[in-house]
Amino acid sequence: MTIKIDIGAPGESYPALIGAGLLEQLPVILDEYAPAYRYAVISDDRIGPLYAKAVLEQCRSSGKKVQLYSFAAGEASKIRKNWSKLTDGLLDAGYGRDTCIIAVGGGVTGDLAGFVAATFLRGVSLVQVPTTYLAMIDAAIGGKVGVDTRAGKNLVGAFHPPKCVIADPNVLATLPDDERSAGLVEAFKHGAILDAEYYDDLRADMDLLLSADPEAAKVAVAGSIRLKGEVVTQDELENGYRQILNFGHTLGHALEAASGYSLSHGAAVAAGMVMEAELGERLEVTESGTSKALSSGLEGLGLGLETIPQLDPEVVMSFLSSDKKTRLGRSRYVLLRRIGEVEDAEGWSQEVPEPLVREIIGSRRENN
Amino acid sequence: MTIKIDIGAPGESYPALIGAGLLEQLPVILDEYAPAYRYAVISDDRIGPLYAKAVLEQCRSSGKKVQLYSFAAGEASKIRKNWSKLTDGLLDAGYGRDTCIIAVGGGVTGDLAGFVAATFLRGVSLVQVPTTYLAMIDAAIGGKVGVDTRAGKNLVGAFHPPKCVIADPNVLATLPDDERSAGLVEAFKHGAILDAEYYDDLRADMDLLLSADPEAAKVAVAGSIRLKGEVVTQDELENGYRQILNFGHTLGHALEAASGYSLSHGAAVAAGMVMEAELGERLEVTESGTSKALSSGLEGLGLGLETIPQLDPEVVMSFLSSDKKTRLGRSRYVLLRRIGEVEDAEGWSQEVPEPLVREIIGSRRENN
Repeated sequence: MTIKIDIGAPGESYPALIGAGLLEQLPVILDEYAPAYRYAVISDDRIGPLYAKAVLEQCRSSGKKVQLYSFAAGEASKIRKNWSKLTDGLLDAGYGRDTCIIAVGGGVTGDLAGFVAATFLRGVSLVQVPTTYLAMIDAAIGGKVGVDTRAGKNLVGAFHPPKCVIADPNVLATLPDDERSAGLVEAFKHGAILDAEYYDDLRADMDLLLSADPEAAKVAVAGSIRLKGEVVTQDELENGYRQILNFGHTLGHALEAASGYSLSHGAAVAAGMVMEAELGERLEVTESGTSKALSSGLEGLGLGLETIPQLDPEVVMSFLSSDKKTRLGRSRYVLLRRIGEVEDAEGWSQEVPEPLVREIIGSRRENN
Repeated sequence: MTIKIDIGAPGESYPALIGAGLLEQLPVILDEYAPAYRYAVISDDRIGPLYAKAVLEQCRSSGKKVQLYSFAAGEASKIRKNWSKLTDGLLDAGYGRDTCIIAVGGGVTGDLAGFVAATFLRGVSLVQVPTTYLAMIDAAIGGKVGVDTRAGKNLVGAFHPPKCVIADPNVLATLPDDERSAGLVEAFKHGAILDAEYYDDLRADMDLLLSADPEAAKVAVAGSIRLKGEVVTQDELENGYRQILNFGHTLGHALEAASGYSLSHGAAVAAGMVMEAELGERLEVTESGTSKALSSGLEGLGLGLETIPQLDPEVVMSFLSSDKKTRLGRSRYVLLRRIGEVEDAEGWSQEVPEPLVREIIGSRRENN
């Protein structure tokens, strides 16, 4: 059974479809949600051979005009140069305004192909076909697209909602273990900020989710999409409420950067969630014991705090002050009340005393 | 007296303010319509010394944080490379989401700086300060921003409406004569498709407009902004009605390209309008005599058909078929009923028999 969840966006909402085997029905789904004169599948050279070529063949055999455009896998590819190359490829092939771009892959592909779609002839339609947990529950939902620059990640981009998101849990079988864990961190985050019951379900189904059991994955992905979808529907252009999705990410991004990116994004955000919960506890905003509970929940993913390398607190602090989400040069934090609920005292994020942040980063180091 | 015209846009409308001396009130206008933590003025190296530096000084003396970013004047600068450089300059200087970009210049500046604003940190606010007739009545209105690629003009971009448009006719005094004429061609076009009375007023005030008399310019600019504003308000994302603004441009663009861009955009569009009116007459859609009337009206600008060089009809036809506005490979034309009114029989544009187009292009050649 396919699950359909509508996500709000400026102009019109779009559906996220979640179901095992959906990829095989792609041409029918395109006809319904994203009819176009020509299609362009964009994928990287790792996912391309696994799934994008199959997508291509299906589209062709249903009579669609379609071509595949590929780029080298990896975050390093999410840059303006590849955006230009993909765009020029479409222009050289004579693609017009009646084009639909199909992004098949992880977050990098969705962001890069999405930015191509957002800017090609001032915007053409886009279908997101995420192939990782992280892309299914996070990157493909909400309309954010863009590329990295030398100054940091996602600094150039747009809001360009897709016509639909197609999440087929069958593709998770080929996902490397560490990418499964990293994606599930964001699912835990959705539970932590919005839904304690969902959080408990994730803990209970952990082993099935880590082995990418299609039914368990479908339920978890749908749960996370529903939660994220409610947030982005309420705050389509990220002016307020959507900030709660940054829980764990203020410190997480700084930890990731301070490690020279030797720390994975998933592990960094997991650590960031635990440390930001501790921050909340010290400020008496977060229920006592929340940090410990998060830590034990995330341990099952093999990404708990024990994997954090020793980092100099001053280096972490320096990355905090250069974060894109700072306002007037000060970092802001989303704080929990308890698992399943965020504090909304000063908008949805707040400043906290710097010495306390420094202390929490430092104490983590001593524990290692 | 400042004239204020509201232009519709997805989300919220924005005002176009037209008045002599408005540039001197810029800080107050920014406080009202585009408050921001930091401002970045973007201008080219021709307009920068004339106006952008004065804008900068005024902002500084009113206590605003502001810096000037400049690029080499000319259409050749409207490329992704300069968009990247300007973006990186802002990132290096630590600009955040609470930024407002002020575009001071002609259409190239508005498009390039606007595309920076549309994509910087997924979009920051934008104020358009057009300094040419063409930018005031056309480029700055409607939210279209973007850059050229090797495949053609404006092929990469976005819809990013400004917070406000500030048109100060005093700056037209420094505009070269041929740029005044070229801008007024688009004003004539607005009259031709929408308002015969406005068209007649332009003809009557031609000499004052060509000498950039501030009062006559204010009235003409406001008239054109009102007409274009009504069109883009009805069709914010260019799905239908906005096509009427392409009158004269299907053939105009092809003539411009076929001449290797030796023909100015204004002259090419003027010729395109006359020839598309003739096309309409031959198809018995356009009132007989319209083409002649347009030709005599445009003669006053020194851009009439007599300035068109001899062009090979086959070359012009080849550029027609590669136009961005083609659908399924066929060019579409906006046809007049008479001056002040367009035909809306098949949507707002229609296909016409190719042999007739070829004949009209060829007959023009023989007349020269």
